[in-house]
Amino acid sequence: MTASPLKTGSTIGILGGGQLGRMLALAAADLGFDARIFTPEDDSPASRVAAGATVAPYSDLDAVTRFASECDVVTYEFENVPAATAEAAGAHAPLRPGPKALAIAQDRLAEKTFANGLGIETVAFADVVSPADLEAAIKTLGASAILKTRREGYDGKGQVRITPEMLKGPGWAEKAFAAVGSAPSILEAFAPFVHEVSIIAARGEDGATAFYPLTENRHEGGVLRESRAPAAVSPATAKRGQEIARAMLGALDYVGVIGIELFELPDGRLLLNEFAPRVHNSGHWTPDACVCGQFEMHIRAVAGWPLGNPTQLAPAVMTNLFGEDVLAAPELAKEPGARVHVYGKRDLVPGRKTGHVTRVG
Amino acid sequence: MTASPLKTGSTIGILGGGQLGRMLALAAADLGFDARIFTPEDDSPASRVAAGATVAPYSDLDAVTRFASECDVVTYEFENVPAATAEAAGAHAPLRPGPKALAIAQDRLAEKTFANGLGIETVAFADVVSPADLEAAIKTLGASAILKTRREGYDGKGQVRITPEMLKGPGWAEKAFAAVGSAPSILEAFAPFVHEVSIIAARGEDGATAFYPLTENRHEGGVLRESRAPAAVSPATAKRGQEIARAMLGALDYVGVIGIELFELPDGRLLLNEFAPRVHNSGHWTPDACVCGQFEMHIRAVAGWPLGNPTQLAPAVMTNLFGEDVLAAPELAKEPGARVHVYGKRDLVPGRKTGHVTRVG
Repeated sequence: MTASPLKTGSTIGILGGGQLGRMLALAAADLGFDARIFTPEDDSPASRVAAGATVAPYSDLDAVTRFASECDVVTYEFENVPAATAEAAGAHAPLRPGPKALAIAQDRLAEKTFANGLGIETVAFADVVSPADLEAAIKTLGASAILKTRREGYDGKGQVRITPEMLKGPGWAEKAFAAVGSAPSILEAFAPFVHEVSIIAARGEDGATAFYPLTENRHEGGVLRESRAPAAVSPATAKRGQEIARAMLGALDYVGVIGIELFELPDGRLLLNEFAPRVHNSGHWTPDACVCGQFEMHIRAVAGWPLGNPTQLAPAVMTNLFGEDVLAAPELAKEPGARVHVYGKRDLVPGRKTGHVTRVG
Repeated sequence: MTASPLKTGSTIGILGGGQLGRMLALAAADLGFDARIFTPEDDSPASRVAAGATVAPYSDLDAVTRFASECDVVTYEFENVPAATAEAAGAHAPLRPGPKALAIAQDRLAEKTFANGLGIETVAFADVVSPADLEAAIKTLGASAILKTRREGYDGKGQVRITPEMLKGPGWAEKAFAAVGSAPSILEAFAPFVHEVSIIAARGEDGATAFYPLTENRHEGGVLRESRAPAAVSPATAKRGQEIARAMLGALDYVGVIGIELFELPDGRLLLNEFAPRVHNSGHWTPDACVCGQFEMHIRAVAGWPLGNPTQLAPAVMTNLFGEDVLAAPELAKEPGARVHVYGKRDLVPGRKTGHVTRVG
């Protein structure tokens, strides 16, 4: 355990070697820190910009222990860090954000219950552990709903959309529950939202908070395509977004950047969709358009430094690049207002995020 | 030798492991490239953010050859790359900027002669290879002058200031020449400048050019302390700065970022002081205040990508941090307009640059 704020040359451990880890490592380096990556992947995008890497499965708790012992603080780029991994790391270095945020973010039922407990609205939902639960829940929540596993699942995976048509088929509940692997699940009522928005926010070790403007997100097939900031919402809605973030950060005794996805209803009300206890794809525009971007903000927070300045200097639109889209990067880089970021992935797998471009102004 | 523009995952070799190499490596990573560092130093600041490092002396031409063979292009962070090193690297990968720029930048006499040949004024100067040359040169150039070695020397090293008082002492010429190591030297007349300014500019593989606004620099003891941009110069002087840069870039068939130091005379005329065929300390404000900073600009150029947009979005003042100054980084980071950069040097040697802070707006 180390003195705060962390001094130049201290080591920030990052669980996960993907693009978020890479951008965190770059931000850490810019503040004089050594980044150390823990990843099951040889030659990961993050490892290639870090001072060191440990290549081992997350389940290798000895490796996690050795890794954490070499770090002054440990953070992570993904919310599905196994609890045992988080615990092993946290026993040897401060784990930021802490285990409470991880535990809640990993369980959709806990997440919504937590939010409701803070007076933050969500869609109506029901706990589903059997086809019978599902049938009962549909009667309460209505025939347009989404069945999601409580744990795991991202970018639209582990989800089944329930439609009124489906309910006409025999054994629909058995089929739907089987389609999510018969795993403990949650049925969520359909949200009649007009916008999907998100707020990226941060809390420091000292309890200080910082909020980026609300971002408007466009998904396709459950995957984020485009984020636009600031979102075209009323001042009251923007203010409510901040209140939600502030309440969650405080209740979680959070240290670091959080990404909170929200639905905006026609009347401007915001419902929590989900949160990620990490930097977030919908915040990728922030380094290009704000005084301090989300990656540096997160590093400052976990290092016990003062938070950065989240002020947005110009409007921004961030577009994800998938698979070989990224080969057009030099062409995209011709646009005078475009800021291109490429993740250095070895395989340009179709549908996988390989870069993004932010258009500023 | 490789197709241009370089594709994601290509390797950019950087000769030199200091802070400039580090910031170049970070910029390369952000565009999806792997950086590979060649440095005599174990655990150099640049190596710790790069995909790979070769640790060997610059004189180890076999190591240079192996290094260059693993790179798609090679660039450098310092102008004193030995010619044999540059040649060995250039035989296996494109060396950018090319050997002509390196050769001229390494020799103050060649540099001034080159500039004058392009119609770019310099201070009056004379070739000095002996105390007798020095005595003769003083008679022509006047008693206030600076004797500098033609080669090597930076941040005020390898220089002796000649004053009218010195000339009264016996054997002054022998002593002064001995003080610069009796090396081939150049005597430069004193420039009655009102401002020290610099221009950071770039040229792409396609001959396109980009110019940052003129920067005003304050040195102490021959070392840059502060850069302020844009410089408080007339539009005519600013235009002349660009003309100088454009002429030099073209004549050198240059690819990459160049840093050109100039003296502004009371009448607004600009004299070339010296140029560096690399990113430059007086351009450290550009990543914080321009659409595309000098490090990304350089990487784009050497990778055969289109140049970036050098437009300055807000006024900026960059202050170097020396030695343990950098320990105040968390404190400095509290200022809402301050952008702090720390180089991750292991030893915080007094007087050595260890970071910088840019105040924007």
